[in-house]
Order: sequence, then C-alpha cells, then structure tokens
Amino acid sequence: MTDQATSITASSIVAGTDSDRADVAAATTAAAEAFGAYRATSPEERSAFLEAVAGEIEADKDAIIREAVRESGLPEGRITGEVGRTTGQLRMFAAVVRQGDHLGVRIDPAMPDRAPLPRADIRQRMVPLGPVAVFGASNFPLAFSTAGGDTASALAAGCPVVVKGHPAHPVTGTLVARAITRAVEKSGLPAGTFSFVLGGIETGQELVRDPRIAAVGFTGSRGGGHALVEAAAARQVPIPVYAEMSSINPVVVLPGALDGDVDALATAYVGSLTLGAGQFCTNPGLLFLPSGEQGDAFLRAAGTAIGAASGQPMLTPGIAEAYASGTASLSGTEGIRLVGQGTAAGEHAPAPAIWEAPAELLALDDSTVTDEVFGASGVVVRFDGVADLLPRLEDLEGQLTATVHATDADTQDAAALLPVLELKAGRILVNGWPTGVEVGHAMVHGGPFPATSDSRTTSVGSLAIERFQRPVAYQDVPAALLPLAVRDDNPWGLLRRIDGTLEP
Amino acid sequence: MTDQATSITASSIVAGTDSDRADVAAATTAAAEAFGAYRATSPEERSAFLEAVAGEIEADKDAIIREAVRESGLPEGRITGEVGRTTGQLRMFAAVVRQGDHLGVRIDPAMPDRAPLPRADIRQRMVPLGPVAVFGASNFPLAFSTAGGDTASALAAGCPVVVKGHPAHPVTGTLVARAITRAVEKSGLPAGTFSFVLGGIETGQELVRDPRIAAVGFTGSRGGGHALVEAAAARQVPIPVYAEMSSINPVVVLPGALDGDVDALATAYVGSLTLGAGQFCTNPGLLFLPSGEQGDAFLRAAGTAIGAASGQPMLTPGIAEAYASGTASLSGTEGIRLVGQGTAAGEHAPAPAIWEAPAELLALDDSTVTDEVFGASGVVVRFDGVADLLPRLEDLEGQLTATVHATDADTQDAAALLPVLELKAGRILVNGWPTGVEVGHAMVHGGPFPATSDSRTTSVGSLAIERFQRPVAYQDVPAALLPLAVRDDNPWGLLRRIDGTLEP
Repeated sequence: MTDQATSITASSIVAGTDSDRADVAAATTAAAEAFGAYRATSPEERSAFLEAVAGEIEADKDAIIREAVRESGLPEGRITGEVGRTTGQLRMFAAVVRQGDHLGVRIDPAMPDRAPLPRADIRQRMVPLGPVAVFGASNFPLAFSTAGGDTASALAAGCPVVVKGHPAHPVTGTLVARAITRAVEKSGLPAGTFSFVLGGIETGQELVRDPRIAAVGFTGSRGGGHALVEAAAARQVPIPVYAEMSSINPVVVLPGALDGDVDALATAYVGSLTLGAGQFCTNPGLLFLPSGEQGDAFLRAAGTAIGAASGQPMLTPGIAEAYASGTASLSGTEGIRLVGQGTAAGEHAPAPAIWEAPAELLALDDSTVTDEVFGASGVVVRFDGVADLLPRLEDLEGQLTATVHATDADTQDAAALLPVLELKAGRILVNGWPTGVEVGHAMVHGGPFPATSDSRTTSVGSLAIERFQRPVAYQDVPAALLPLAVRDDNPWGLLRRIDGTLEP
Repeated sequence: MTDQATSITASSIVAGTDSDRADVAAATTAAAEAFGAYRATSPEERSAFLEAVAGEIEADKDAIIREAVRESGLPEGRITGEVGRTTGQLRMFAAVVRQGDHLGVRIDPAMPDRAPLPRADIRQRMVPLGPVAVFGASNFPLAFSTAGGDTASALAAGCPVVVKGHPAHPVTGTLVARAITRAVEKSGLPAGTFSFVLGGIETGQELVRDPRIAAVGFTGSRGGGHALVEAAAARQVPIPVYAEMSSINPVVVLPGALDGDVDALATAYVGSLTLGAGQFCTNPGLLFLPSGEQGDAFLRAAGTAIGAASGQPMLTPGIAEAYASGTASLSGTEGIRLVGQGTAAGEHAPAPAIWEAPAELLALDDSTVTDEVFGASGVVVRFDGVADLLPRLEDLEGQLTATVHATDADTQDAAALLPVLELKAGRILVNGWPTGVEVGHAMVHGGPFPATSDSRTTSVGSLAIERFQRPVAYQDVPAALLPLAVRDDNPWGLLRRIDGTLEP
C-alpha cells in the first residue's frame, strides 16, 4: 500500500492525503520537544487550553458537522450530539485538571527523631508519561477521534498528543485538528503539543514504534488493537497500549422480566441492537433468554420488531462487508436459525437480523456465536434456570458491559449472576440497554481482554486521565526545588494524602 | 534441568523440593476456587487476616530468622530488621484496607429530569483482578519474598496469591508460607487463598502461563523479568506483569556539595555502595562527579574508603559469579580505570570496587558502564558543568532512583536537572543515598523501563495495592443488588467521590 499523507501541527496543515514516515517523525519530534513546556503548565493554564479547544471546535461547528455527516453517513442529529459530547468531555477534563485530584499528592513528613532510623521527608505526585499516540475510531468521528476522549484525557494529564486520524473521515479529522492547533497557538503553547497525521496501517505501526511515543490510545477492531499491542511490546522500551477492541455485551433476561410487557421489552432490545446501524462497541450482540412460553413470546416480538426495521448506511464499505461476512457465518452454521430480519436499504445499509443459537455452540471451541459482528446482528441463546446459565457466562470472554433484566422476583437469581458478570465486564446494567455511554466521573468504558487490552482503567469518564500518568517520589528535596504540587504552602490548593489520610 | 518441588497450601506442605506441573496447577486451581469467597471478605475480615499473617510470622520469628541467616548469608541484624519490615508492611496494608480509600468509590447520581436524556445512576468501585503469581526475590528473603510487598498488596486488594519461592532460600520461604497458611486456616478462609511452590525457571513460566493467573509480581534480574513479561504477553489472555528489574541509580554530585566535608561525602557514598554487599536494587552504581580538583579529592577519598572495605558473602554463587563477570568487563574495557578496591573475603565475598569511566563511553552504544553490576561495584563519570551533564542523563535508561547532592549554591543547576531526572526515575533524592526504601504512603519504588516493566505504579508503599484492581461501574443497579461499597447507606464508611467531588 502507499501510505502517505499529512501531518498537521500548528505550523503546517495539508488535508486529505496520507502522511509519510517523515511526517510521523516530524510530529513525534515536535511532541517530544513540546513535552517539557506543556507538562510545566499550571492547572489553570492547562484547563484554559482544554476549554479553548472546545471553543474552537464550536466556532467551526457548522463545517465540522457538515463534513462528518458527509464522510460517515451518520445522521445530522447524531453528529450534532457528538459535537456536544466532544466539547463536554474537554470541559469535564478542564474541570478535573483545575481541581487537581488526579495529581495524587501524598506527603509522608520527616520524622527526624524516629528510632532506630529517622524517616526522610517523602512526597509523591503524578507526572505525565510523555507524548501519546491516539488512533481515531471510525464509529465516533468526533467523540472517539481527533479531539475525543483519548486526546482530551492525555492532554489533561500533560501529555502532547499525536493523532492518527481515521481514514474514513479525513476531512472531519483535519477540521478538528485545525481547531485544536488554533487553540494551541492562541494559548501560547509549543506547536508540538498536538499533531495530526493521516494514513493506514503502516503509518500507525510507525507511530507506535517511534521511540518518542510513551503510550497509545486506540478504539477499533480486535485485529487492529492486537497489532498495536504487539508492536508496543516489541519495542526496545515497551509502552502501555489502551486498546478498546471487541465486546458482544451479553444481556441476561431473567424470568420475572418476562412477566411484564414483553412487547415493550423486545422493542427496546431491537432499538438498542439497531441504534446507529448497530455500530457501537456496546451493541447487545448476545442475549440470554429463558426457555419456555414467555421466552418464546419475547422472541416472536423481537422477530416482529426487527422485521420492521430497515438497514441504515454503515460507516464504510469495509464495515458493511464484514457485517455481511459475519451474518453469513451465522446463517451458515448448523443449529442457528434466523428469528427475524429487517430490510436492506442499499448495498451498504444491510438488513438487521436476530438469530437463535443453541447453548451448546457457546461451549464448543467455535467462536461463531461469540465473535463480535459489528452491526445490527444479535444472537439469542436460551437457558433453563441460573444453574444452567452460570457456566455459559463463566465461559465468555471479557466484555465492556453485561446487563441483567430482572424484577424483584428475580433478586436471588440476579444476585447469583452479578459476581460472575462483574469479573467479565467493566460495566453492569440492570433493566437498561448498554448502548449509550454516559461521560461522567463514575463511568467505566473498559473491561477484561479482549474488550480492552488493559482492564485496569477506562477510556470514558474522568478516571481516564490516570492512564497517562505515573508516580514520582521526592525524598528530602528542599522546598526551592520541589514541584509546586507537593510544596508545603500548597499553592494550587490540592487535596493531599498526609501520612495516609486525605486532608482537604 | 529438573524442575520439581513443593506446593504448600493450607492443606499440604512439603519443604525444600521443587514443585512440578501438577503442583502449579493445583495451586492455581485452588486460588481460582478461593477467589470468590476471598474477595467477598469485608474490609474488617481482610484486615484481620493480614494482621494474623503478621502475627504468625512473629510467632515463628526465631526459626525464620535462623533459617534466613543460614540460607542468605545476610547478618542477623539485617534479617531481624527485615522481619519487622515484613510484618509492618502487612499491618500497613491492613490499615489501608480498613480505611477503604483504595476501593475508589465514585457515585454519579441519577438525573431523571435531565434534558434531552435523563442520566442513569452510575456507581464505580474497584474489584480485585484475580489470583496473583508472586516471585520471591533473592536479596530480600522476607520483605520482597513469600510474605513481602507483592504478596501483602495483592492479598490486600482481594487477590489470592501463589508464591514461587526463591530457590536461594527455600526453607525460609517454606516457614513463612506455613505462617501464612496458619493465618488462612485460623481466619476461616479457603485454603487456596495462599499457596507456595518452589522451582526454577520452568515452574515460573508454567505459573505465568496458567490461565487462572490474572497478574504477576516479580523482583529480580532484567533477563528474568523480561522472560515473564514475554510469557504474559504471549498468553491467549495477556495479563499485567509488575517486574522490578534493573537500575544503576545515578547520583549527581554538584560542585557546591564538594565545598563541604569531601571525606564524609565519599565515605557515605562507599557506605551506600557496599551496604549488604551492594545487593540492593537501589545501589548507587553510577556517580557523576565534577571535573577539577575538588572532584579529584572526592575520588581519592572514595578510593581510600573502598580500599578499606572488605567483601561480604553474596547471596548465591551465581550472583557472585555475575559480579565477577561484570567487574571483569569493566576492568577489561579500555579507558576505564580502577579507582580503588577493597579486600575479598572468600570465594563468594568478592572485593568491592570503584571505577572511573570516560563520559564518552556513556554516549557509545556500549552498555559496559550502564549495565547493572549487582553488587558493590560503582562507576564514576566526570562532567564539566550542567550543560555537559544533561545530555548524559537524557541518554540513560529508566531508573528506580536518581539522586542529587547539592547546596544552596547549586540550586539553579539542580533545578535544571530535576525535570530530566523525574522523567528517568521513580524517586528523586537530594543529599541522601538511594539504598534504604521507606515503606509508607508516599514512597515510589518503581520507574521507567527497564527499572520496571510498568512505570505506572510502585512495588513498595500503600499505592502498590492499586496494581491488582480494576474499576467496575454499576448502572441503575437496585440497592438490593449493589455491592456494599457503593450502597447509599455506605455501611463501610468509605470516602466517596460524588459527582466528581470527594465527600467524607
């Protein structure tokens, strides 16, 4: 492949072509040069910069929305919402930085008279890791792309960012990159604080192998994430990769939940399954349904609802092809039956579908049922009681979410499921649907492998800032040399852990 | 090699032989079975268990000290101190668990009236990763071994532990393992909460490859750590490895520090270099010294002091051989000269030594000067001013510690060094020596690769508990199903982050 395009820094912007190796090196060199000055910014300066990024995106909102709709095929309402989510995320991280709890200040004061040995004065704070490479996602051209959650949290932590824009929306990415670089310039920050390159797999590999890159954020396919994890591990100095990859988001319907309005429940399921053409990481790809008459009724209602649904344009021809191949594999597997299917609306807007698969297929070393089919395709598996269900859940791979539908009558069963589900997933829902990820302080968008490559964190929500930091201790460092964050006079008014106890 | 020995759980103990594959599988199976019950313990139950472990070690203190002195060759005073450090560490983690801040509770309350979409109730807490494999270290038969920091922090997090005892002190390890298993039994915990196996490299690899193991703690050599990191990355489900591996702990002496008592400074340097036969991860292996007369005086004094030092028995014949080979490599390198050398005290108690190496050797692609020589061997490199020094420091690999000796007159120079050093090391010291790692809340014993395989954390101090946890979010989960840690009535009295702000 030819793998060439553009790098965008505050100094140079050329849109819509691929970056070459020199562009990648120029971007990472500029990021490394900017790191010292950028990480030295005060909480107020860094917060103001993040707010300036949000402001510059809003200033060019009309063009960004127009191009994102054109490039992604997603409806204008959705894209408009995503702009709000993107700027809201930037402002949330601005508030987090201003508050400063992420600096994790700890002070163990000296004990000069301790016997047998005196204790030194030891102070701890978090420092940023270094320049971060961010890979934009196809399915969120704004909120998980150029100025998305990975970029916002890395910049908030004090790390310069080099984004590899997603080839599915190069112009949108370029417009957002320009907005960020305007904010960099207006904030008086070094040009290398943010750079943008375009390109394919080779460009991405080049970026992850670059010795100046200290961490990687990625949202995309299992194969793509795996390749970056491997490249990062093979470096002379391995670096952390936060790759959000693959999840089928199991939903368990317990018997009590079928005592209510089964039609409404089935319609809500199909609504979540088909939302945005099913192109969400949290799409409910696998549903466990009780055997018996009420389960049958739910399945009939789901079949009817999906039958009435029509296809929506998928993000790229490649994604539409992968959907066709995934559903063909389900369709061609003995024992799997089609419960219902909607109507295709053109070559790249395939029919949504629901399948029923025998539970035995889950136990086999066959991933047809458990591989993510990115798009509006759902598999239903029946079960007889929780004792029958638990081993199936225990066999599942790691997930972003796990959902239980239950009423009070199901409490005992649900209580048996939750300890299993919370070891499988980053987020547990009851009586909801997993699509739609709230940006807040308590959210976890993460989970055990292969949902992500690193379950110890989240890519959505304020905790995400911690991915790009590491602790440093200062022992007997004189006041004049101490970083401001850990000085006695606490000029930034930070919350501090003194001898193990948090003190405001 | 034959690679066979013992597994110890609350049910079976056979000391001093090597574990075989069945022993490893039995230990990890027991750990996986114990995980559910162990992680469900309340803060009070888990704290009491950690305190019981400390109590059982103290109850068998005499035998443990006797065997550790015999197996390690370390003096009784040092080993006695290590027992105190080990039990102190366990009690510190008991206090951390009782306080509960590590559970990281975050609550974003529901906003049913928010427009355009209501906000769900979302709550977050940390859950333990699963069974942890811990590799005991040769140089701390107690504090970094069977019941050392990795074990204590993993147990504190709610993870069952399988220790592979170090072959250099199998009996000490077995005695400590018995103490832990007594505490497991007396606390009414499942036997698999703690297991102990002995063996060599194959046993270790087996343990890391075992699908029931969720994380690894290791302290040892660069080669050994690397092998475990690679094995963990090659698993079907990769897992985190916290390997503390290699560090030469640079010390910079600034000119002002030579204006005082140069003899005392040189003596302190040699004291740190030769402490415990130099067998500390934080041994000051590389010292940067100003050119000129005062630097010459320091070097002469250091040469005199090291000349008066005699060798101490090294931990194992293998370690003594590696020391001989490392010093032979220094001695055989053109341009490196011997500054001074002490007296050997037997085959496995080699002579401590200080070398002077030209700065050019640091810049070359030759690791003779920068490779860790485990033992009492130090290299001194001269410099002319900070401008000359900074590029040398920037070229160094990641370190556990970096130290500056300075007076007020050096403040400007020291201020220029610190931002570089804090990106290279986990702990910065001024006017101290890096040996001796305080166990507290602010300590960082960690640092960029190859000091450790994961710079985002520490293996000493209370922050170490966070290595073995991951966040889970609960969305609209009814009170009856919520984990106690995140319930409204806050039965454990935890500090909670409500809508982003910590509330007591």
